[in-house]
Amino acid sequence: MMIIMNVEATQEQVNAVVTRIEAHGFKAHLSKGEERTIIGVMGNDPIKTKDQFMFMPGIDRIVPISRPYKLASREFIPQDSNFPVDGVTIGGEEIVIMAGPCAVESRTQLLEVAQAVKEAGAQVLRGGAFKPRSSPYAFQGLGEEGLQILAEAREITGLPVVTEVMAPEQVALVASYADILQIGARNMQNFSLLHAAGESQKPVLLKRGNAASIDELLMAAEYILSHGNRRVILCERGIRSFESYTRNTTDINSIPVLKSLTHLPVILDPSHSTGRWEFVTPIARAGIAAGADGLIVEVHNHPDEALSDGGQSLKPERFAALVKQARAIARDVERR
Amino acid sequence: MMIIMNVEATQEQVNAVVTRIEAHGFKAHLSKGEERTIIGVMGNDPIKTKDQFMFMPGIDRIVPISRPYKLASREFIPQDSNFPVDGVTIGGEEIVIMAGPCAVESRTQLLEVAQAVKEAGAQVLRGGAFKPRSSPYAFQGLGEEGLQILAEAREITGLPVVTEVMAPEQVALVASYADILQIGARNMQNFSLLHAAGESQKPVLLKRGNAASIDELLMAAEYILSHGNRRVILCERGIRSFESYTRNTTDINSIPVLKSLTHLPVILDPSHSTGRWEFVTPIARAGIAAGADGLIVEVHNHPDEALSDGGQSLKPERFAALVKQARAIARDVERR
Amino acid sequence: MMIIMNVEATQEQVNAVVTRIEAHGFKAHLSKGEERTIIGVMGNDPIKTKDQFMFMPGIDRIVPISRPYKLASREFIPQDSNFPVDGVTIGGEEIVIMAGPCAVESRTQLLEVAQAVKEAGAQVLRGGAFKPRSSPYAFQGLGEEGLQILAEAREITGLPVVTEVMAPEQVALVASYADILQIGARNMQNFSLLHAAGESQKPVLLKRGNAASIDELLMAAEYILSHGNRRVILCERGIRSFESYTRNTTDINSIPVLKSLTHLPVILDPSHSTGRWEFVTPIARAGIAAGADGLIVEVHNHPDEALSDGGQSLKPERFAALVKQARAIARDVERR
Amino acid sequence: MMIIMNVEATQEQVNAVVTRIEAHGFKAHLSKGEERTIIGVMGNDPIKTKDQFMFMPGIDRIVPISRPYKLASREFIPQDSNFPVDGVTIGGEEIVIMAGPCAVESRTQLLEVAQAVKEAGAQVLRGGAFKPRSSPYAFQGLGEEGLQILAEAREITGLPVVTEVMAPEQVALVASYADILQIGARNMQNFSLLHAAGESQKPVLLKRGNAASIDELLMAAEYILSHGNRRVILCERGIRSFESYTRNTTDINSIPVLKSLTHLPVILDPSHSTGRWEFVTPIARAGIAAGADGLIVEVHNHPDEALSDGGQSLKPERFAALVKQARAIARDVERR
Repeated sequence: MMIIMNVEATQEQVNAVVTRIEAHGFKAHLSKGEERTIIGVMGNDPIKTKDQFMFMPGIDRIVPISRPYKLASREFIPQDSNFPVDGVTIGGEEIVIMAGPCAVESRTQLLEVAQAVKEAGAQVLRGGAFKPRSSPYAFQGLGEEGLQILAEAREITGLPVVTEVMAPEQVALVASYADILQIGARNMQNFSLLHAAGESQKPVLLKRGNAASIDELLMAAEYILSHGNRRVILCERGIRSFESYTRNTTDINSIPVLKSLTHLPVILDPSHSTGRWEFVTPIARAGIAAGADGLIVEVHNHPDEALSDGGQSLKPERFAALVKQARAIARDVERR
Repeated sequence: MMIIMNVEATQEQVNAVVTRIEAHGFKAHLSKGEERTIIGVMGNDPIKTKDQFMFMPGIDRIVPISRPYKLASREFIPQDSNFPVDGVTIGGEEIVIMAGPCAVESRTQLLEVAQAVKEAGAQVLRGGAFKPRSSPYAFQGLGEEGLQILAEAREITGLPVVTEVMAPEQVALVASYADILQIGARNMQNFSLLHAAGESQKPVLLKRGNAASIDELLMAAEYILSHGNRRVILCERGIRSFESYTRNTTDINSIPVLKSLTHLPVILDPSHSTGRWEFVTPIARAGIAAGADGLIVEVHNHPDEALSDGGQSLKPERFAALVKQARAIARDVERR
Repeated sequence: MMIIMNVEATQEQVNAVVTRIEAHGFKAHLSKGEERTIIGVMGNDPIKTKDQFMFMPGIDRIVPISRPYKLASREFIPQDSNFPVDGVTIGGEEIVIMAGPCAVESRTQLLEVAQAVKEAGAQVLRGGAFKPRSSPYAFQGLGEEGLQILAEAREITGLPVVTEVMAPEQVALVASYADILQIGARNMQNFSLLHAAGESQKPVLLKRGNAASIDELLMAAEYILSHGNRRVILCERGIRSFESYTRNTTDINSIPVLKSLTHLPVILDPSHSTGRWEFVTPIARAGIAAGADGLIVEVHNHPDEALSDGGQSLKPERFAALVKQARAIARDVERR
Repeated sequence: MMIIMNVEATQEQVNAVVTRIEAHGFKAHLSKGEERTIIGVMGNDPIKTKDQFMFMPGIDRIVPISRPYKLASREFIPQDSNFPVDGVTIGGEEIVIMAGPCAVESRTQLLEVAQAVKEAGAQVLRGGAFKPRSSPYAFQGLGEEGLQILAEAREITGLPVVTEVMAPEQVALVASYADILQIGARNMQNFSLLHAAGESQKPVLLKRGNAASIDELLMAAEYILSHGNRRVILCERGIRSFESYTRNTTDINSIPVLKSLTHLPVILDPSHSTGRWEFVTPIARAGIAAGADGLIVEVHNHPDEALSDGGQSLKPERFAALVKQARAIARDVERR
């Protein structure tokens, strides 16, 4: 970290800072400019001690130098991470498309949608058994029954299954049915849940919180990685901005930014990042064009009867067209 | 809810919408303007069926009319709610000041700070035993030992204790030591935790998520209230905006807005909403001037040695001055 | 507009509102729900009188129904607008790529870049003669000399020229050299300038302000259109959000949203919307994939010596690769 | 500025950066940490050359050290600036309250409001003659006639007058009538206007743009100050955030932050920062409690008939109560 002194800081104030730096076992490195002095603090992660300097007189501000995450960083692992999930490679040359209904509503509904998305070219089946809902009065999901239906759909279609887990004590149950654990945007900083998902050693699809910075997303991934669980997939699903025309603002910049900072696979959820089905297809295409490793898309056979988020779900025909366009664009950007 | 048709919607499209409204058991109420038709949907909470209309041709947009929460609403309970916690009335004429360190670090530290904040005029003691931290490598709190120290401080000072609970399975443990359960900003939409806190019947201090709208905060309170637990305190602690000079942007507007929408007590956390000790006192004063029912402030005897968030903690002397100014302002706005 | 009464509004309060509505020459249309009464106000643009109702007792809130712009709206002109500028059709089947340096720095520089972008496939040349700069101490552009150099480059390359105009009194001068007037993001609500640009009858490239909502962008376009100037091109160039990793947040959602709301052509500026050259190409591709009618891209022969915004400029080789990928994607989405 | 090299940067890359630094006439100062090298660049404003380094291989990022403004900075002038305007001291011990209607609508209206705000204790009269309106179809102000009415009101009441100027060519006209030129939020980065206002040597009330960072506001002030015009008043009037319950989000933090960064007086506009009259009084009080040097408040004798922004205007009685509370709070924070 660098400590930037005030323009009018005295030599005594500089000395006091240096003394404290050395008391922590770090080395101080002074740069005296025409205007002010800057003190580099060298050592093992000095930023942790930042608060211990903030009160010292003569300091203007403190600038961190190292990134706060390591295992997630491309500086740590320069090559793209990729890993197979039930025969589907995530993070490889071929883009991966995950699709299915927002919530599992019934056996008939799920099997019908699963079959449809498989035919359209999806490689992973999504569907919520436990649903986080802003209102306590809304449909909260089928729970374990939903998980059983998902497992049955996997058997029939051969598609691996991704589904959300909402609390640490659900991890074992969900992990016994699902191939990929999804951690939702609202739980991105539910640290107990991140620990439990890390320990499960299952692949984890980690969604970015709607007000989480890119650094915070990578720090949340670090929680999972720090348990030795290397199979983490990051998912952009829109952030909150002043623009309210769409449900969220797709932070499309985050796709190439994340690809530059981390080796982990990055996918886009255009259904939540727009919130309106009319905009899902163009934004899905944009995600692939920007370099995403895949998509996760809500598809429903009867979106106008869906129990949850129907307004952002595509009908199977539209989804099939989306897959075709997304794969064509993948080839234009040297993917498949 | 109101369904606003397109300018060019046909009579058939209007009829189809009306037919579906009636099929749901609602009544349709048509207003034909010069430009377009608007259809009022009357009945019990028709907004739940919104998605079932979004796909119908001819619809421009759908506008909700009722607010999505009831128990938290001033329309439901017009008078201010107030309730005693161990002899301290929250939401009454007198403002309530909660103070203490970010984290319980040791018995000596906590008892010293507890004594200091009591002398300065605080009525409730705060201190974290379980700490949510963005980094997996940061200090995570003393856990149950921290709770025991808090309970001891209560015995000595007589101050009731508020402390954070991070997961549903911790609720029973924390509730056995604390007087008020705090739900942190990152967990505002951790619905499993909201349910567990509701069931505990303990008073709950609910912090606004840093990207939560006012409606979402009130919906989260509704989760707790819906378990018959009426003792909920709302806490503004800053939202995330583009301005990065301070850690968060204190949404001071939210104080009078919340007071107009809900009967629940509303307090301000100026320590997190600014993130820098220099700004805590002016913003604490602003909170009371804007009509807040109280404050929750971080105080540390040695902020430059704090294990967590020292940079936003006040020294006891400064805190004492803050209390004095806050109470003077309370009198100016007809509080105490 | 709809006036939504409070749950506890009295019949007298409802009557008073109706009386005032009729006094304005509008018709009132009552819908009495179980919970509350809603009053539709029918007539010619009643929203203008909104403030005259806000103070009446018993009113909860007022909801606008009509969109605040007309000439820019797809309800007014359903088909896509397109128009030729010196032989280049903007808004047609073929995407249009505008490119050139941020600022005109010298004759040699501009002619070199102009030749390079032409060869790479750009159809319009961009370059700033008047530069809006946050700092009064930064390079402010060559002024009229820059305009002369741009005109010379047009003669040599045949590319029409787009350049920024910063004040109403500059419009005549800039219009005498340029083919398209650019109004920058900071001036999107400089209404004197919008009027002057409207009166000039020149094509106008209108950039979205970094905190402007989509409705505000369309209202700004309406200012120009209301002078009978129909040749307006809208440009997304990033909005300000909490994410600070990139200079702005590309609001990629705005592309399909704008295409659904307005008939005007919509292009993307990936240079400003990211602020870093590494991210320009993926975001440019994303813009075309999302349905944009074109791009405006900063290209510089020596970006490391540029006097302005070099860090977001592409070298000509990289730009040539971008053009190739963008056109391939255009074909995937049924453009050229 | 500091150049932070990549973890894997080579010695050759470091050398190349140093060579270029020296070629610019700056001094390079190397700090070699365990992980990476950091290069301090010493000299006169090296940040201007930032783009010339961004493309060099091996560089991770570049961190500015000096603040981009000088004349506005407290490092340049440590004491609070204050100055008299027609006998009213702005920035002194006594807070200054400016009030009046959003727009001058007629002679009768303005004189009535002017008299009322004077009696309530306002020291400066506000009123718009030229109005920036989002819609080209809204009331645009009375123009010069409005200025004449303002001048007459000054003669009668003795209150100095502040009014908005929207374009450089209006500055001379407005300055011939007004005591303080107001530059509105939408024009905060209208650099031609800032220059013209600077040259006029009139006191300037500069409003923060709704998406302007604190640094950008100070840079805009710098434009005015750089013409030798030292009488600049900064005004917080709300920023745009995701929260849409109020028209803007009052960035109350900006008050103490600005007071720490600059010597210029800082006032709050609670009318625009909330947009709803019910919230104006509590937020006005909050501004004074946070340390503002004054307020600018919209007051209208018949807000329900106002031609512009009536919904955020106070009636004179309410304004009188506000003044009383604001002055009581001023005394609590050692002002008057």
